[in-house]
Amino acid sequence: MPGGHHEVNSSGGGASRSKDEENGGVGGGGGTRGGVPRALSPEAVPAYPPPESEEEESWVWSQIKAEARRDAESEPALASYLYATVLSHPSLPRSLSFHLANKLCSSTLLSTLLYDLFLASFSANPSLRSAAVADLLAARQRDPACASFSHCLLNYKGFLAIQAHRVAHLLWLQHRGPLALALHSRVADVFAVDIHPAARVGKGILLDHATGLVIGETAVVGNNVSLLHHVTLGGTGKAVGDRHPKIGDGVLIGAGATILGNVRIGAGAKIGAGSVVLTDVPPRLVGGKEKPARHEDVPGESMDHTSFMDQWSDYTI
Amino acid sequence: MPGGHHEVNSSGGGASRSKDEENGGVGGGGGTRGGVPRALSPEAVPAYPPPESEEEESWVWSQIKAEARRDAESEPALASYLYATVLSHPSLPRSLSFHLANKLCSSTLLSTLLYDLFLASFSANPSLRSAAVADLLAARQRDPACASFSHCLLNYKGFLAIQAHRVAHLLWLQHRGPLALALHSRVADVFAVDIHPAARVGKGILLDHATGLVIGETAVVGNNVSLLHHVTLGGTGKAVGDRHPKIGDGVLIGAGATILGNVRIGAGAKIGAGSVVLTDVPPRLVGGKEKPARHEDVPGESMDHTSFMDQWSDYTI
Amino acid sequence: MPGGHHEVNSSGGGASRSKDEENGGVGGGGGTRGGVPRALSPEAVPAYPPPESEEEESWVWSQIKAEARRDAESEPALASYLYATVLSHPSLPRSLSFHLANKLCSSTLLSTLLYDLFLASFSANPSLRSAAVADLLAARQRDPACASFSHCLLNYKGFLAIQAHRVAHLLWLQHRGPLALALHSRVADVFAVDIHPAARVGKGILLDHATGLVIGETAVVGNNVSLLHHVTLGGTGKAVGDRHPKIGDGVLIGAGATILGNVRIGAGAKIGAGSVVLTDVPPRLVGGKEKPARHEDVPGESMDHTSFMDQWSDYTI
Repeated sequence: MPGGHHEVNSSGGGASRSKDEENGGVGGGGGTRGGVPRALSPEAVPAYPPPESEEEESWVWSQIKAEARRDAESEPALASYLYATVLSHPSLPRSLSFHLANKLCSSTLLSTLLYDLFLASFSANPSLRSAAVADLLAARQRDPACASFSHCLLNYKGFLAIQAHRVAHLLWLQHRGPLALALHSRVADVFAVDIHPAARVGKGILLDHATGLVIGETAVVGNNVSLLHHVTLGGTGKAVGDRHPKIGDGVLIGAGATILGNVRIGAGAKIGAGSVVLTDVPPRLVGGKEKPARHEDVPGESMDHTSFMDQWSDYTI
Repeated sequence: MPGGHHEVNSSGGGASRSKDEENGGVGGGGGTRGGVPRALSPEAVPAYPPPESEEEESWVWSQIKAEARRDAESEPALASYLYATVLSHPSLPRSLSFHLANKLCSSTLLSTLLYDLFLASFSANPSLRSAAVADLLAARQRDPACASFSHCLLNYKGFLAIQAHRVAHLLWLQHRGPLALALHSRVADVFAVDIHPAARVGKGILLDHATGLVIGETAVVGNNVSLLHHVTLGGTGKAVGDRHPKIGDGVLIGAGATILGNVRIGAGAKIGAGSVVLTDVPPRLVGGKEKPARHEDVPGESMDHTSFMDQWSDYTI
Repeated sequence: MPGGHHEVNSSGGGASRSKDEENGGVGGGGGTRGGVPRALSPEAVPAYPPPESEEEESWVWSQIKAEARRDAESEPALASYLYATVLSHPSLPRSLSFHLANKLCSSTLLSTLLYDLFLASFSANPSLRSAAVADLLAARQRDPACASFSHCLLNYKGFLAIQAHRVAHLLWLQHRGPLALALHSRVADVFAVDIHPAARVGKGILLDHATGLVIGETAVVGNNVSLLHHVTLGGTGKAVGDRHPKIGDGVLIGAGATILGNVRIGAGAKIGAGSVVLTDVPPRLVGGKEKPARHEDVPGESMDHTSFMDQWSDYTI
């Protein structure tokens, strides 16, 4: 099936920037990206997350506040921290902006500057807020160790890194490269997560553990993707320009996997931990190569790293 | 030998918490864990560390103070730092608590709060102190680059991360999950070491280099284990509940090894750098599969990564 | 060719310290190292960087200031930061010292102490300055994502880590081990880059992404080498003393490669991402083993990870 069907548009590299990107997303099912309409196969990825709505953000935010209130009561040592970071804020974007600013500030990049920057970005771009909500839902649904929304909001370096990346990406698209790269650098220092501001990342993303993740400048990551720690979406060094992987919707990439070059990882594919991938990987199928059939399981959402390995031993270790 | 003999009890997962765990350890030779007595084979692991005693702690602490005094004299640039961190303190737990609090504090988690928390935990739990002493001795004995106890105490992110983890684990057992997870998050940010607070870790542990280490929620690590950097003890995503590896006493796991799922790594086993392990590994033997014999060398203590590789090529790269 | 021709002297380990090392370098083409003169093959590595000169430093510094001025004008949010970090300083060493001190300071290691330390080291050692300049040029030439010198100076954790390492190495050679190790520890915490102060590293080095890099005590890295993130130059644990890899000039080591033991990686060799290397690798040749011929491409400079892979499948994944 290589070359047969690809969900991710490879026209990235910052050459053309559609309105879709300006809103911080990398495009949804059937949308146009880079000006080239592509038919996505809707049966490969279930309709998740549900259509954006302020209601979903409100609901998640009310959950977070209830959790923080409960935790502040049961753990006085955290009360002041939880009040300052969550309970004193009127909305999720404010709490998130405050928390990110405190995490990423330095003696030369002040927290007040970062707070203003994050808040302005989240306020002006509803798609950034809905992406954050989709990421929170993804962590709860996919990570058995994620006990609450507030745990993810406060403690997941992967969640925080990707929210900061979306703001850096927005700055990049607004031709504010130096600020985008300064933010990128702080995220790389503080969280050990290195996502180039030009990289386009979808929503409903889980960066599990996250330490050591590297995503290169012209990489594209679809929706509902789960990436474990130490994953590299890098270049081969041979090419300049568009030189990084394109990851389809619903893909799961295991710990330490290294994917190099402008290759396409098809929707729903599962890349085993420790893999080194230098070629395209077709969309996930079952039944072997002779009788390929699309599989109903979406690894990026189920987080199932090892099922059907015997049928796919040529793509997983 | 797979399935024949296992040193690590897999009943983890936080379901049952014995008195043994309340003291912060994961059980010693022949102890009961999770209420199920298991016979450990004492010949596999020499009697190290020697029985806990305040004398050992006193001896190590006097060494540390002497080293710090010598270094403060020879290096005036460090004198103030060494005085504040080591020499002004009356005991190892106070010095360690002060140092950890300074390393892990943030604008929202104050150093005074963390200092009180660490000090109270070390004071109330002699087993946490003896585990720290065993880890200091392990670093000196196993790491040729560890020139002094004070070097390990002050500079080893792996040593500091695991001491903080033991306090987080104690909080977890005391049903103080939110504080345990906040501490876990700080350790993941500051040291790039990600050990879930529920994970049970023994004593005499060397986390060499430590960056990128990930240990999942239901993992168990025995005594006298050495883990190199970028090691993952993770889940396969298929299972919830008890889903992470169980590492026997005396095991050595090389850099970048990824061990996934509720598998058992038998006592004294050696996992090669870069390995991806999805199945049980028997206790370390020599003589090949036909004539297995237990080997006197304990890799977790000798740090010998490569000897006997030809006899074990199916378990090491 | 194994054993035939080696560019890197393995006599490291701190036993003998030549004048060459005192200046912070690891020796250039044809120099003596460890007292043993070795003939280097000049055709393997082009004459890069050009002979040291204050002019080159001045030129790069004028570029950096022009870039910072342009960025401060276009991005008012960064103006204060750029003024404090770059524009207010009269020279590259001062700017670099200020930036490193701010990045690496802590509540116990004050930024003023670190600033004085870095400035004194750079002032007294022209070779440290020329090495920094060579590293800046290397990043611009080899990394397509490196848009400006100031981007590298301000944001590349690999660049900053290696400049701090060179100062730590100088302290180590001056028998100021405790301060060298304290600096090493801060770099490991802040940048997740772990280079032992005793390790000897050349110039024109690119540490791309850098997170997770580990270089052991007796390792030697030549000139014009490019190391990706998560690379380990470690020990096997069997040996004490001189126990880490020796990396020749012009070598390229891909992401996550683990090289263990006192092995030699010949000049111009290319180590594939994810490799585990336990033996010597000959200098890079083309034409297969029957008709070996030196290749004109220097991977450490071209960053070409994958060309000629079919001819070298026994050394690259």
